[in-house]
Amino acid sequence: MNVLNSLQWRYAAKRMTGERLPQEKVDIVLEAARLAPTSSGIQPFSILQITDKGLLEKIRPIAFNQPQITEASHLLVFAAWDDVTGEHIDKVYAHIANERHLPEDAQAAYVDALKKRFAAWTPEKRAAWAANQSYIALGIAITAAASEKIDATPMEGFHNTGLDQLLGLPERGLRSVTLLALGYRDSANDRFVNLKKVRRPKEELVIEF
Amino acid sequence: MNVLNSLQWRYAAKRMTGERLPQEKVDIVLEAARLAPTSSGIQPFSILQITDKGLLEKIRPIAFNQPQITEASHLLVFAAWDDVTGEHIDKVYAHIANERHLPEDAQAAYVDALKKRFAAWTPEKRAAWAANQSYIALGIAITAAASEKIDATPMEGFHNTGLDQLLGLPERGLRSVTLLALGYRDSANDRFVNLKKVRRPKEELVIEF
Repeated sequence: MNVLNSLQWRYAAKRMTGERLPQEKVDIVLEAARLAPTSSGIQPFSILQITDKGLLEKIRPIAFNQPQITEASHLLVFAAWDDVTGEHIDKVYAHIANERHLPEDAQAAYVDALKKRFAAWTPEKRAAWAANQSYIALGIAITAAASEKIDATPMEGFHNTGLDQLLGLPERGLRSVTLLALGYRDSANDRFVNLKKVRRPKEELVIEF
Repeated sequence: MNVLNSLQWRYAAKRMTGERLPQEKVDIVLEAARLAPTSSGIQPFSILQITDKGLLEKIRPIAFNQPQITEASHLLVFAAWDDVTGEHIDKVYAHIANERHLPEDAQAAYVDALKKRFAAWTPEKRAAWAANQSYIALGIAITAAASEKIDATPMEGFHNTGLDQLLGLPERGLRSVTLLALGYRDSANDRFVNLKKVRRPKEELVIEF
């Protein structure tokens, strides 16, 4: 199945069956998100994988009681760094240098310029930038799930601070950005399953120069 | 090739050969981006497809003189709405109603609630939300390109307002967010082509609950 067929197959399931996905299928989605490109390779986010049923029950009311929260097999939370610091950047580039066997100072000028760029931004701009990067990974995870015929429902509709508190994200320097419920569509009970997929027409979306 | 092989194959080419991609290949990338899910299905962005060589020459200095701007076959600009208005939402939902043959008022309560939600936000928050959605489409476009073995280099490094002015985006109610250069990697001249792909390890990126 090519990528367009996969994207046509997918939809945002509002009801799921509760069946458990094999972990190796979910790992494909996680690995795709891990491979997402991000600006300067910083990957300023974490992905929380939640399978604990009791915890999902607690999350559901925080997410406007959407059934797919508890009917999913796995709930992923894309959570971005709440700031981007010099220590963060040093850690990322020490890892890159190590993996690529680079001499200690090979990246020094680049890393220094990067740190100066972030330091010149407001904390809000840094957090917004980190969240943006997590959306790239979300898009890639959605596509990977579709390619594996895993139903995946992206969600912005939840109380971010409530979820952050519940999961202890402030202590980890993270803020929840989006959710991605993974599971099996409940075709018998989801009234959205047979609705025509509607998107803005190409002539309106794409402008040629 | 499965999705992980595709994502392993891709990298952000810094040098491209200037060869022209068949338009039908680029159309796959555009169609994938068009199929991207967005919150409430609003798709608050446009994608500018630029192939005019003279225009690309003008964009290059606005983008820190990165060679892939002029060596690309097609440059895509993901540009988000600079605001989300009631008129925008009405237009989107009129289109959905038409495509799904829904009675006129079937979506009225939902649309009304949606308008109230956006109206309660600041203009900055609405623009940031629109930009976020464009990153989902960017992630999907990157994955689609990789699946078709099209080299694709995402870029945030450019002067947004300079590009907006050059392309007349304010008149269209758009703001540039990211670039995606599409083309063929120049393996002979790109020192990045053989570098090991480095990502944060899964144990660090993924947190299990």
